[in-house]
This record gives sequence, C-alpha cells and structure tokens, in this order.
Amino acid sequence: MTQQEMYSLIDRSQVASLGYTDENGRQNIRMVFSTFHKGIGVHLISTNTSSSHVQSLLKNENACLYFSDPSTFEALCLSGRAVIHFDREYKEMLWHPQDVQYYPGGVEDEDYCVVEFIAESGRFYSGSSENYKGDITGQEIEAMTAGRTFTDHRVEA
Amino acid sequence: MTQQEMYSLIDRSQVASLGYTDENGRQNIRMVFSTFHKGIGVHLISTNTSSSHVQSLLKNENACLYFSDPSTFEALCLSGRAVIHFDREYKEMLWHPQDVQYYPGGVEDEDYCVVEFIAESGRFYSGSSENYKGDITGQEIEAMTAGRTFTDHRVEA
Repeated sequence: MTQQEMYSLIDRSQVASLGYTDENGRQNIRMVFSTFHKGIGVHLISTNTSSSHVQSLLKNENACLYFSDPSTFEALCLSGRAVIHFDREYKEMLWHPQDVQYYPGGVEDEDYCVVEFIAESGRFYSGSSENYKGDITGQEIEAMTAGRTFTDHRVEA
Repeated sequence: MTQQEMYSLIDRSQVASLGYTDENGRQNIRMVFSTFHKGIGVHLISTNTSSSHVQSLLKNENACLYFSDPSTFEALCLSGRAVIHFDREYKEMLWHPQDVQYYPGGVEDEDYCVVEFIAESGRFYSGSSENYKGDITGQEIEAMTAGRTFTDHRVEA
C-alpha cells in the first residue's frame, strides 16, 4: 500500500475494529465508529464510559485499531495504546448534536468519553500482488502524522 | 441474540477477525477465512505457518475470533485460545484441491497449518433493542457445541 492508499482507507472508513485485552487477560474485538483522525497516527473515538472496552482499556492501554475495505481487499492494522479522556476539551471536539440520543446529559454526560488511540506500529494488507503486506514503523507513522490536524470524516446518514 | 441467530451468523460468515497479541505485547487483528465450525465453540482455520499471527499464537495462545454482519448489525466476539496443528489429520480435514495455489507442496506443505480456535467465553451485539448486548458463558458455549461435528460452510467462489 502507498501512503496515499493508507490515508484514503482510513478517511473513507466509518467504522474500525478495536482490539484489546480485558481484565481476565482475554482478547476482545469491538466495532467502533472511527472518523476523527490526525494523519494515520492518532484517532479519536467517542464512546460510552460504561462499555466493557473502556473499562478494560483503563486497566490495560495496549490496543489495536483495524481499518479494512472488503471491496478493495485493503486492510491496515495499527498497534499502539488507548488513552481515555473525560475532559470537556475532547468531549466538545467530537460532539455532534444528534449524539444526545446516546448521551441524554449532553457533552457533560458522565457516560460519554473519548478514546484517543495512538498508533506506534502498523501492518498493511492489500489485494495487489506487489507489496501485498508490509510493516509500518513508528517513524513512518510519525512522518505521516506530524503537522496534520484532527479532521472529522464522518458521513452523515 | 438467540442461539439460532448466533449459529446463523457464524455459519453464513466466510471471514472472521482474529485478535491476538504479538511477541512485543502488541495487539493485532487479522482477517482470516473461517468456515469450518463445530457448534459455536470450535473453529478451524487453514493458514500459512510463516504468517506473523501463527508465530505470535505459538508464543501466546490467547486470542479472539470476531464474526459480524454489517447488514443485520449483528456481531459475536468469542474469546479463548488458539492451538496450531501441523499434523496430517487436521491438514487433510481442511484441504481443498484449489488450496494448492497457496501451498504448492499440497497437504504436506510445511507452510500449511491449521489454527484451532477454542472459545471460552463470548459477547454478542445485535441491532435489535431487546438484548442488544450480552455475555455468553463457557457453559453456554459448551452446551452449544457438545454433540456437534465439524462442518465446512465454505461457499465456493
């Protein structure tokens, strides 16, 4: 995959799979809405504080975020860590008026929080025979993230 | 989700997401073909011995297998362990003649092996408002697996 293909895959995705380990050392995967990106290195996800993945990530921040497009046979697995934010700054940045259906208390709702996923390495898979799969180093991720700003690629239903 | 809905989701899926931890303690997700099931508890996956997920699972068997259907908003995350088989019995059971394109040496190809995923607990998510999400215990998984035989649900392209 070229760098442009990686940006494109991430930016057009609306959901991603979040991989994490729970309190019992068990692996888990959960689908999350992930449309708020800074380059390929940082991703913000609004979610429920009470969710089991948030409770698990508060105890073990190791996680991965997996983007894929079955129509192009492309996939990108970013490994790194997840930081949970409860402060207003993050919560306001991601807030959409329609989120009130999930968080009746609005931006200040205690069940509303933001997961910041920070990628440290990655691996890509693509349908093309050349460079079918390959690793992405932390340095490459940094170069593909530095100087960029957070952008929300959410497509309204 | 009802038990019947769980069987149906697994049986009609052709791929699943495999979550695991690599040698550096990093979370990873990889898409795998998963069509060979015994109930909901045991799943056989043919794959490349040289793949990074096999090498990681040989060192840390904790894994999860995630089935999902975006069209019905159903998802099932099974947590458990992965055992790698190199013996002919398993390799013959999963072999399809067309697999020779991936494993030129046939059933005996050293790069061909079988991952046996054994579920120990689970969690489901469904689009319906009733029982939107819930846990599945090891006992429930056993009851939904005992007495069943391996069946291949692969749909030929």
